[in-house]
Amino acid sequence: MDSLKKYITAEGRVLSDDILKVDSFLNHQIDTVFLTEVGKEFRRRYNNCEVNKILTVEASGIAIGCVTSQFFDNCPVVFAKKGQAKNMSGDAYHASLHSYTRGTDFVISVTKKYLTSEDKVLIVDDFLANGEALKALISIVSQAGAELVGCGIVIEKAYQPGGDLIRSQGIRVESLARIKSMSVENGIEFCE
Amino acid sequence: MDSLKKYITAEGRVLSDDILKVDSFLNHQIDTVFLTEVGKEFRRRYNNCEVNKILTVEASGIAIGCVTSQFFDNCPVVFAKKGQAKNMSGDAYHASLHSYTRGTDFVISVTKKYLTSEDKVLIVDDFLANGEALKALISIVSQAGAELVGCGIVIEKAYQPGGDLIRSQGIRVESLARIKSMSVENGIEFCE
Repeated sequence: MDSLKKYITAEGRVLSDDILKVDSFLNHQIDTVFLTEVGKEFRRRYNNCEVNKILTVEASGIAIGCVTSQFFDNCPVVFAKKGQAKNMSGDAYHASLHSYTRGTDFVISVTKKYLTSEDKVLIVDDFLANGEALKALISIVSQAGAELVGCGIVIEKAYQPGGDLIRSQGIRVESLARIKSMSVENGIEFCE
Repeated sequence: MDSLKKYITAEGRVLSDDILKVDSFLNHQIDTVFLTEVGKEFRRRYNNCEVNKILTVEASGIAIGCVTSQFFDNCPVVFAKKGQAKNMSGDAYHASLHSYTRGTDFVISVTKKYLTSEDKVLIVDDFLANGEALKALISIVSQAGAELVGCGIVIEKAYQPGGDLIRSQGIRVESLARIKSMSVENGIEFCE
C-alpha cells in the first residue's frame, strides 16, 4: 500500500512521538476516495475469504466499515456502541477496554441478534496501537460464537504492543500502513 | 421513495408512539445496500446543486454521509464530534443541543479548517424530529460562513416540530420518509 503510505505521510501530522493526527482524511473529515482504496486493499488481502459481516466500533470505524462493505458484497456492517446506550436492546454483548487517548475505561456493546454463530466476521478499525479496541471487538466475536476471519487496520503503530500480541494468538491482522517509528523532527518511518 | 418506506415499514420496529427502532439497518447494524439507495435519492433530489462537502454528526450520520458522498463526486464528509474531544484541534466551531433521547444537553464541534466560506454544504442525518441536531449543524455551517445547499434526512417524524421549523427559515429539507403518525397497534403511517 505504497500509495496509502504516501498519502498518510502527506496528510498526517505528527504532533509528538506518539500522536499522529489524521483528522483531515480519516477521523473527522473523511476522504472517501482514500477509504475506497482502503476497502479495495482489504478485499485484495482477504480475497479468498468468505466474509458476511463487518464489525467495527463507533465513530471513526463506521466510515471504514461502510466503504469496505462495498467490496465484500455489501455485507452488513455492525458498529459496537460505546457505553451501554439507553436506546439499545437489553440483550447485548459487552467488552470493556481502556482508552489511552482519553485516560478512562469504558464499555462497548453489540446487540446479540446482530452477531451470531452464523457470522464470518472481518473486524475493521482506523488505528491499532495497544490493541485495546481490537481485543474488545475480538472478545465480542468470541462471545457470539462467530468465526473471526481477520482484522483490517488502516494504520498500525507497530512500535506499540497491540499488533504483535493479537497476532501471537493466531489471529490474522492486516494493517495497510505499519509505522515503525515517528517523531516531529523526522516524520513517519514505516516498516518494510 | 416508496421502496425505502416499504423497507422502513418491514424492518423498523415501533416500540411506542414515539420510538422507532431502526437499529437493524440504520444505526447499529447498517445495510449498505439500503444506504446506497438513500445516497442515490439524495443525489436525485439535489441533482442540479453544487455540493462540495457533506456535513453530519457522529455516530449514525457517518455511514449515511460516506455512502452519499459517492453520489456527490466523492466530496469530503465532515462529521461533527460530540463533546469537545481532547484530541481535537483547538480552533473549532461549537453548537449546543438538547438530546431528548438522552435527556441531556451536549455540544457538537467541527474543527474550523474543515468547514470554510468556500464550502457548499449538504447536511445529512438519520432522523429529524425536534430538529435539535439539525439546528446545531446549521448553526455550524452559518458560523463557518459556508453556503448551506440543503439537508437530507432519512426519516422525519413529521408530527414533531423540527422539520416545519427549519423549513420555515427558508432552508431546504428533503426527507426520504416522512412519518405522519405511528403506534404499536397500527404501525407507521407515512405522509403523502
